[in-house]
Amino acid sequence: MEKICFIIAMHAEAQPLIERYGLQHIQDYFGELPTELYRGVINGKELNIVLNGRMNGLDLIGCEAATLTTEAAIMRLRPDILINAGTCGAFKSKGAAIGDVYLSNGPVMFHDRRVGEEGGWHDMGVGNYPTADARQMAKDLGLKLGKCTTGSSLDMTDTDLNIILREGGELKDMEAGAIAYVASLHKVPLICVKSVTDLVDGGRATEEEFHENLHRSSAALKDACTKIVQYLMTEQPTLF
Amino acid sequence: MEKICFIIAMHAEAQPLIERYGLQHIQDYFGELPTELYRGVINGKELNIVLNGRMNGLDLIGCEAATLTTEAAIMRLRPDILINAGTCGAFKSKGAAIGDVYLSNGPVMFHDRRVGEEGGWHDMGVGNYPTADARQMAKDLGLKLGKCTTGSSLDMTDTDLNIILREGGELKDMEAGAIAYVASLHKVPLICVKSVTDLVDGGRATEEEFHENLHRSSAALKDACTKIVQYLMTEQPTLF
Repeated sequence: MEKICFIIAMHAEAQPLIERYGLQHIQDYFGELPTELYRGVINGKELNIVLNGRMNGLDLIGCEAATLTTEAAIMRLRPDILINAGTCGAFKSKGAAIGDVYLSNGPVMFHDRRVGEEGGWHDMGVGNYPTADARQMAKDLGLKLGKCTTGSSLDMTDTDLNIILREGGELKDMEAGAIAYVASLHKVPLICVKSVTDLVDGGRATEEEFHENLHRSSAALKDACTKIVQYLMTEQPTLF
Repeated sequence: MEKICFIIAMHAEAQPLIERYGLQHIQDYFGELPTELYRGVINGKELNIVLNGRMNGLDLIGCEAATLTTEAAIMRLRPDILINAGTCGAFKSKGAAIGDVYLSNGPVMFHDRRVGEEGGWHDMGVGNYPTADARQMAKDLGLKLGKCTTGSSLDMTDTDLNIILREGGELKDMEAGAIAYVASLHKVPLICVKSVTDLVDGGRATEEEFHENLHRSSAALKDACTKIVQYLMTEQPTLF
């Protein structure tokens, strides 16, 4: 792996990793887009972190921003692998705890794209875009495995929840599905690494729990990402 | 207007217009993306229609596909204006009927991006990305005006409906918000032209009504788009 590219939505999620590797902000790399590039060379290999950027002082989040960022990152950087690092909600009933870090297990689904019940349209809505096989990596690095499910909202309606449960979603985020969609079109391998900020079945409001745990989860995310970078740069991992 | 670019999701929506102008399919114009380009020269001016393309034999629809298509169209074609033409759901209670054709009135909102109630986050979720001022054009061409509202589903939950009503949405589609987001980043003017296929408060299932009326609405859409092309190519319209 000569060129690694992280796709991260929020500065709070990225900052610990940017500092860990002393990455440089490359100004205006993506032209008219708000997308931001942080770059460094680690042991002769290129490490990139691409962020959605900000609008009105807030981190751009969600699927449209993630789609755009991933397309720009792939077209400009042509990375060997994409890693979508971020925070997520997860299910206490499926064994998750705040601060747990997971790798993506199998394809990434969407839980809020209801475009019909017939086979083809149902499948297009759910997406299920592929990720690289991270099972050996999870074992080697002591990380959990879970199926990512993406939606455009921080909260979750009963309709969303029913789709998540029916389709086997475990890690609820706001970007992975969009990133997996674009990565799959360009055939760039993708791993998602997700740190739990809130328990969607824990009885507390997502927004409150998310902000309370963001700092702690971002630190756990940084530790996992550091191990992943080391692993990808030194091992010949079996991902495909 | 020397270079016009339509962004259209479905072949059924685009085909009447492609035939009307005898546009040529430019194969593989967008490289690894499924995005399709149809192009022609009309009175010395360039007319482009860009489609999301297909996956597993079905038209790609929704916000991720629309984001990608718009980014690719802007970066490769650098059009003077984007026109998002498509079908939509609308409210009988607000005076809409099947086959009515509307132009976008003011910014485009999202009704399924719930990312917080606080001012900045609420606003980011709703989006409200700008469109060009189409009021004079609507008057000159005898078209209606309405506020576009976008979501990733063909149906609508009560949660979606409440947001649409609260924020004043009138024309419910699955792409305009994403297209307006990307267009606004690149400062390319955008007009949405939407033909009504289903009445969201008409008491019938959206999917059934949509498929029943798609052909008729696409014909009405073609007639309106033909008038718009003529208008943009011959007049000096006041849009900004």
